[in-house]
Amino acid sequence: MFETVRHFLIGDPLPTSAASHERLNKVQALAVLSSDALSSVAYATEEILMVLVAAGTAAVAGGPFVGIAIAALMLIVAGSYYQTIHAYPTGGGSYTVSRENLGINASLVAGAALLIDYLLTVAVSISAGIAAITSAFPALLPYRVVLALVALATTTVINLRGLRESGRIFSIPTYFFVVAIFGLILVGAVRVATGSLQITPATVTASWETFHSLTLFVILRAFASGCSALTGVEAISNGVTVFRKPEAQNASKTLLWMAGLLVAMFLGLTFLAHQIGIVPEEGQTVVSLIARSVFGRTVPYFLIQAATALILILAANTSFSDFPRLANLIARDRFLPQQFALVGDRLVYAVGIQVLSVMAGILIVAFRAQTHALIPLYAVGVFMSFTLSQSGMVIHWWKQKTPGWHRSAAFNGVGAITTALVLIVVTISKFTHGAWITFLLIALLVALFRGIHHHYANVAAQLSLDQAWPKPMRNHTVIVPVDTLHRGVVKAIRYAQTIQGDLKVVTAAVDPEQAEGLSAAWQEIFPEVPLVILPSPYRSVVEPLVAYARAYMEEQGDYVTFILPEFVPPHAWQAILHNQAARVLRQALYATYADWRDRYVVITGVRFFLHT
Amino acid sequence: MFETVRHFLIGDPLPTSAASHERLNKVQALAVLSSDALSSVAYATEEILMVLVAAGTAAVAGGPFVGIAIAALMLIVAGSYYQTIHAYPTGGGSYTVSRENLGINASLVAGAALLIDYLLTVAVSISAGIAAITSAFPALLPYRVVLALVALATTTVINLRGLRESGRIFSIPTYFFVVAIFGLILVGAVRVATGSLQITPATVTASWETFHSLTLFVILRAFASGCSALTGVEAISNGVTVFRKPEAQNASKTLLWMAGLLVAMFLGLTFLAHQIGIVPEEGQTVVSLIARSVFGRTVPYFLIQAATALILILAANTSFSDFPRLANLIARDRFLPQQFALVGDRLVYAVGIQVLSVMAGILIVAFRAQTHALIPLYAVGVFMSFTLSQSGMVIHWWKQKTPGWHRSAAFNGVGAITTALVLIVVTISKFTHGAWITFLLIALLVALFRGIHHHYANVAAQLSLDQAWPKPMRNHTVIVPVDTLHRGVVKAIRYAQTIQGDLKVVTAAVDPEQAEGLSAAWQEIFPEVPLVILPSPYRSVVEPLVAYARAYMEEQGDYVTFILPEFVPPHAWQAILHNQAARVLRQALYATYADWRDRYVVITGVRFFLHT
Repeated sequence: MFETVRHFLIGDPLPTSAASHERLNKVQALAVLSSDALSSVAYATEEILMVLVAAGTAAVAGGPFVGIAIAALMLIVAGSYYQTIHAYPTGGGSYTVSRENLGINASLVAGAALLIDYLLTVAVSISAGIAAITSAFPALLPYRVVLALVALATTTVINLRGLRESGRIFSIPTYFFVVAIFGLILVGAVRVATGSLQITPATVTASWETFHSLTLFVILRAFASGCSALTGVEAISNGVTVFRKPEAQNASKTLLWMAGLLVAMFLGLTFLAHQIGIVPEEGQTVVSLIARSVFGRTVPYFLIQAATALILILAANTSFSDFPRLANLIARDRFLPQQFALVGDRLVYAVGIQVLSVMAGILIVAFRAQTHALIPLYAVGVFMSFTLSQSGMVIHWWKQKTPGWHRSAAFNGVGAITTALVLIVVTISKFTHGAWITFLLIALLVALFRGIHHHYANVAAQLSLDQAWPKPMRNHTVIVPVDTLHRGVVKAIRYAQTIQGDLKVVTAAVDPEQAEGLSAAWQEIFPEVPLVILPSPYRSVVEPLVAYARAYMEEQGDYVTFILPEFVPPHAWQAILHNQAARVLRQALYATYADWRDRYVVITGVRFFLHT
Repeated sequence: MFETVRHFLIGDPLPTSAASHERLNKVQALAVLSSDALSSVAYATEEILMVLVAAGTAAVAGGPFVGIAIAALMLIVAGSYYQTIHAYPTGGGSYTVSRENLGINASLVAGAALLIDYLLTVAVSISAGIAAITSAFPALLPYRVVLALVALATTTVINLRGLRESGRIFSIPTYFFVVAIFGLILVGAVRVATGSLQITPATVTASWETFHSLTLFVILRAFASGCSALTGVEAISNGVTVFRKPEAQNASKTLLWMAGLLVAMFLGLTFLAHQIGIVPEEGQTVVSLIARSVFGRTVPYFLIQAATALILILAANTSFSDFPRLANLIARDRFLPQQFALVGDRLVYAVGIQVLSVMAGILIVAFRAQTHALIPLYAVGVFMSFTLSQSGMVIHWWKQKTPGWHRSAAFNGVGAITTALVLIVVTISKFTHGAWITFLLIALLVALFRGIHHHYANVAAQLSLDQAWPKPMRNHTVIVPVDTLHRGVVKAIRYAQTIQGDLKVVTAAVDPEQAEGLSAAWQEIFPEVPLVILPSPYRSVVEPLVAYARAYMEEQGDYVTFILPEFVPPHAWQAILHNQAARVLRQALYATYADWRDRYVVITGVRFFLHT
């Protein structure tokens, strides 16, 4: 039943040979790798304005200043990753770069930060995508959690089926979004210039004085919120291998294009929002507010909302390949359970996909699918991994000393210092708003990584052939507990006789008369096998046998096999009609195993199958 | 934790030698064996009046006529069992008598009827006992279900501890009750005679005309309800062995005493209720109403209520020895699961006690601890077992032809015919009120008995040594699946080498490179043991191994042992850090077992224990 549903959803297994690596041209790669980065313009401006509006409606006039600072930061980070692409043409994720240059601890922090980042990307992007839909259709607002979970489940199933990163199909939503946003900015700018747009005059005059009147803390919090626009900037440097040759050149050019598009769209929306005098509104995204005031509720407005929703879901989808891939890397280094490194039926890391989906579902429900509530958790992880990655690159250049390494190190050094400062700003200004959760989660994850690694190292050491090998077998004893004499017992004795060793058959005399009868019958059938009768004053079948086994083990038994005759009724439920002494005895023997761990103690059931 | 609570409640195990059989004198035996019968006067009069009052308040005047009919019935049944005592001095329960004289089917019906009867005795007696308490303290009425469950749980624990049937202690509640009821009847009679009692005049004139005006159906239903007074009459004839010698004489004298007391108390209460003009009242038992009007809410009233509650709980307690004892008999005849015949730690049939307790608890909750709701289910089982028992006795005398057998057969014949008639009356008049449930349950139980018996007979036939014995072993093959090479694998191979047979080691090449590495390492360490590498295009560890095993079994393997190397982490939860291929493989092999049922296929795990 479960198998049928699973097969319907997931499909037939794929052979290993079906794994293929499609190479992408620059236009396709830009679309595939930057959906996360570009889609963040759908919520970043809104996050800035929501902080400012809390300090007074006039404060939203400070938006453009914050926007410019973030745009500058984008360019610095992009420049920094430009270096990484050339240094790590096989893919330089923050985890890898940190591990090679900063050591294991730094890489674990980076890994934890990134896993949380990917998880939040799913939760935030899906929530924001659903917000784009509910902005267009406010009647759906009460169902946003359910809608988000449906979107999450759909994405999960698609990824479990094994979605090839198909450049052609994936280009559509990204470029649709780019065209839609530039269209919005252009038409908006023209209408503002021609004065044909209704604007809110109170907030349109952005002046240095307005900005100045805000407290530093408000400005920093607005900046920290807007930093969510930088998520996904590292994606191209992680994915160099999907580019056509020459990979590094193509990837670095694409990165510049992405940075350009990102800065242009982000600044365009931020300034347009400012010019129109947008003030955030419950139940409406800022992009929806802008689009509605530029186009009204006409076809272009709905197209913009559709494009926004699409690219956001696509952005969530990219985390569904990034998270399992990173979890696989960490699992291969033995800091996560081995199951994360298993390639499933459909050539995907199924465990990673499932874990990501469940945790994102929990976040969506816990935060009621509200983008704004999730954002404070977001930037910490992003900038922690940026900082570690860029710092790692500085060490990389310093160690490599390739021609021009000074310039490269300086570039990455600026990136590292900037992102470190931003990390501090984000931490301080957002700590009580949820950033503490991320810190706590990163600390717990790192502790978990180390605990898991310790376990694996311990297991590997104990299983290593460098240690003393298990002793060769000698003086093997085979003990067969029986309670009566039937064909199943005959089968078990015959089997026991194939094992080289001393055969002992024991029975607990629950009813002494019965035991004597058994003994008499036994001597007729197996005269060569002595039957030991154990007294059982408390009528237990199991305890005298366990006590016998225990005493035997203490005296002499380093090498003992227990052969348990079992009969299996045709239907499992019929087991309740039998007293299951074999099962209880098996469990009791396993429970005493702990004392015999270093010996050869084997418990074998010899099953006799009954038919109906 | 569970063990600690269990041990605290139940106590230390007792050795078989601690089993003792206390013999009782007549005074003690009367108390121990007749609590069920005598206690039924606490509710029987009430049941009659409740039927009559539904036909109009004046109809309760018919009570004495119904009472006299029931008293006559009591004498007939008691006389009938008087015969049984002499014929079955070792205890002639309805199940035994039916089995010996009427055949298996009749005995199964009797057994089912009795088991249900004992179950209802527990539910009815506890409910009635709690009703005696809530009558005295009406504030407790809303908690009657909880109180009943507490009484049930206490009785269960006491019985699981193994309550010896202590004649001395058990005499107290019974004689306390007898004295209390006779005291009530006497004082009540005196006060009625002296006219010092407030009476309800409308209902006091019991006349043949009043009775005549009732429809036959109402009279029969009142009679059927009152028949609940006959429960437990058979107890003395079942328990002949607890009497001192000469058992039969002592038992039969005690039976007469019991019948006398029962008739006297029942008629006394019925007539007194009539004289005072008691009309049943919500939340008050009839005994409570009588006692209150005779004594008011003074000390004697509370003593009567206490005595009633005590004997009713004691009556429930006797079913806790009767039900498991009968279930043991039926289980020994292989019509119930063997577990009912197991003697537990404390020398009691623990399974029977537990099953009875759970089912009585369900009944109490389902019927909201209302005695009146449970009564219609009750009489069917009682009279069915009476009828079968008496009919069996007729056959017994006819077969034995001992001196005077004509007279004995006639006596039992009258009993059989009378109880059969009552059974018909009870069935017809109570069918839609719940008697159908009892019929359905008896039918289901009999079907269950037969199904269980069929299963055991089938198992016994298949396990019988009369059948062809399992073939001797030859051409034994030992297959060891491995995925890597470590100390646990070395241990498993060394173990496998102690089994006489062909050793084959196989591995699934999930990663072909790794498999080659394993092969090279293998040849160095075990040059004498060839390693078979199986291709695994779908990356499954388990499937190629199962397919190999399956193919091997089909070609040649009648005698195969699979040795699975397993390592056991120090803590059970750490298993989630390992991919548990051995566990999955073991399950997959067990799942294919069905096809290999007639062969020697043994799956053995060789465990390697890791320490912390």
